[in-house]
Amino acid sequence: MTTQQLTDQIRKKKSFLCIGLDVDLDKIPKHLLNEEDPIFAFNKAIIDATHHLCVAYKPNLAFYEAYGLKGWKALEKTIMYLNVKYPEIFTIADAKRGDIGNSSTMYAKAFFEDLDFDSVTVAPYMGKDSVEPFLAFKNKHTILLTLTSNAGAFDFQTKTVDGRPVYEQVLETSKTWENSSRLMYVVGATKAEYFTDIRKIVPKAFLLVPGVGAQGGNLQAVCKYGMNENVGLLINSSRAIIYASDTAYFDEAAAQKAENLQLEMAKILAS
Amino acid sequence: MTTQQLTDQIRKKKSFLCIGLDVDLDKIPKHLLNEEDPIFAFNKAIIDATHHLCVAYKPNLAFYEAYGLKGWKALEKTIMYLNVKYPEIFTIADAKRGDIGNSSTMYAKAFFEDLDFDSVTVAPYMGKDSVEPFLAFKNKHTILLTLTSNAGAFDFQTKTVDGRPVYEQVLETSKTWENSSRLMYVVGATKAEYFTDIRKIVPKAFLLVPGVGAQGGNLQAVCKYGMNENVGLLINSSRAIIYASDTAYFDEAAAQKAENLQLEMAKILAS
Repeated sequence: MTTQQLTDQIRKKKSFLCIGLDVDLDKIPKHLLNEEDPIFAFNKAIIDATHHLCVAYKPNLAFYEAYGLKGWKALEKTIMYLNVKYPEIFTIADAKRGDIGNSSTMYAKAFFEDLDFDSVTVAPYMGKDSVEPFLAFKNKHTILLTLTSNAGAFDFQTKTVDGRPVYEQVLETSKTWENSSRLMYVVGATKAEYFTDIRKIVPKAFLLVPGVGAQGGNLQAVCKYGMNENVGLLINSSRAIIYASDTAYFDEAAAQKAENLQLEMAKILAS
Repeated sequence: MTTQQLTDQIRKKKSFLCIGLDVDLDKIPKHLLNEEDPIFAFNKAIIDATHHLCVAYKPNLAFYEAYGLKGWKALEKTIMYLNVKYPEIFTIADAKRGDIGNSSTMYAKAFFEDLDFDSVTVAPYMGKDSVEPFLAFKNKHTILLTLTSNAGAFDFQTKTVDGRPVYEQVLETSKTWENSSRLMYVVGATKAEYFTDIRKIVPKAFLLVPGVGAQGGNLQAVCKYGMNENVGLLINSSRAIIYASDTAYFDEAAAQKAENLQLEMAKILAS
């Protein structure tokens, strides 16, 4: 998918919401545990109920790997279901991968070819030759961890290198990599005051923004400082939407929560 | 496994060799492709031929994920085979994971509980609350990416923060984390001159050292500057050993390459 197609979808749906599919068998409605594949059954219901309110889904790989083969199977079924039934949806493998050259190519093949995701999240620590293998894939996007929404972000990301914080160095350096136009960046919503400087470095790139909702980020502030002329934002919400209820009506409850955010986004887009 | 048990194994086998199981179906002997599970068949033959010459095996997750369900199944069989048949061997899931709190716990469960690896490699970029969930597991080890052996290591890892390089900050900061005694560190062999300073910060920790062999690192120099009184080094070699030959005698060829390194290690340990 191209970023133009993503922006078109945003304008049409009046939404730049991404829903995180962090499926925890201890948290999903109990009646689903009788299904042959509870993880996929949960995802399918959530997707069917919310696909018109969001533009992207983001399965978090940690939650699938924790269930071994069963989890990997559920992931395969989920991405296949999305690609076949809702091909307009932008898909993100939240995998936070990153390794040396040849290994990164293998990871890229796993997510871009075998599973056919539109994008994958990647860690920057190992530098250029760990990220460029992902960037080599046409019409695929690499979402680089930049400034995350957790407390540990202050351990290294905000430390000053040559007069500017590490995360700004990551942004600047990444622009020099081959096919850097296929980059997007993870920037946490909990740090809205940083968006102004980030937009000076990457005015056009899409930013994937976690931390709205459960982690307390402020949607208005993020949009004020982070939005560009193509919107340029994907706001992720996971638990606050998918675990809105654990009753038989969990999918409707999730849709309600998603709609609340979508309506707020529609207002922002119209203003 | 405790680090004492690892050191005991090193003394007994006169080896601190780790063999990387980076299984690429394009590179393994052609006759194995007729097997029901060619990846596992390859691993089993390599392990049976080399287990007395090394103390650790390190499957690189990228190579298994690239084959989807088939790859994940082969990984499960490989770790189970190692744990049942060679329980003295130290096992490393080279996964380079790292995510926020709850997600890191899920990754830790995947590798430490579901697959029962002794250790997993983790990226430091997201800081304390992305690594401590791994450190919470008793008798398990978290191997933090510190100074890697690729060219991209110079993009961020060696940049100066508050008067010292980022990778030294990673070492210092990681020592303040809960259960930091369960940490080990990845330090590339291609940068032997850095080992002296690294040993000043983490004198007792085990260092996992890639880059000997295919990447040109020097075993003698690494040992001179990196070894401590408990040896404290695991030297990894992957392709140079496992792809020594693509004939029917690939396992014997791999054992020969492994023995060459083991003999050099025995000499160093005796000196």
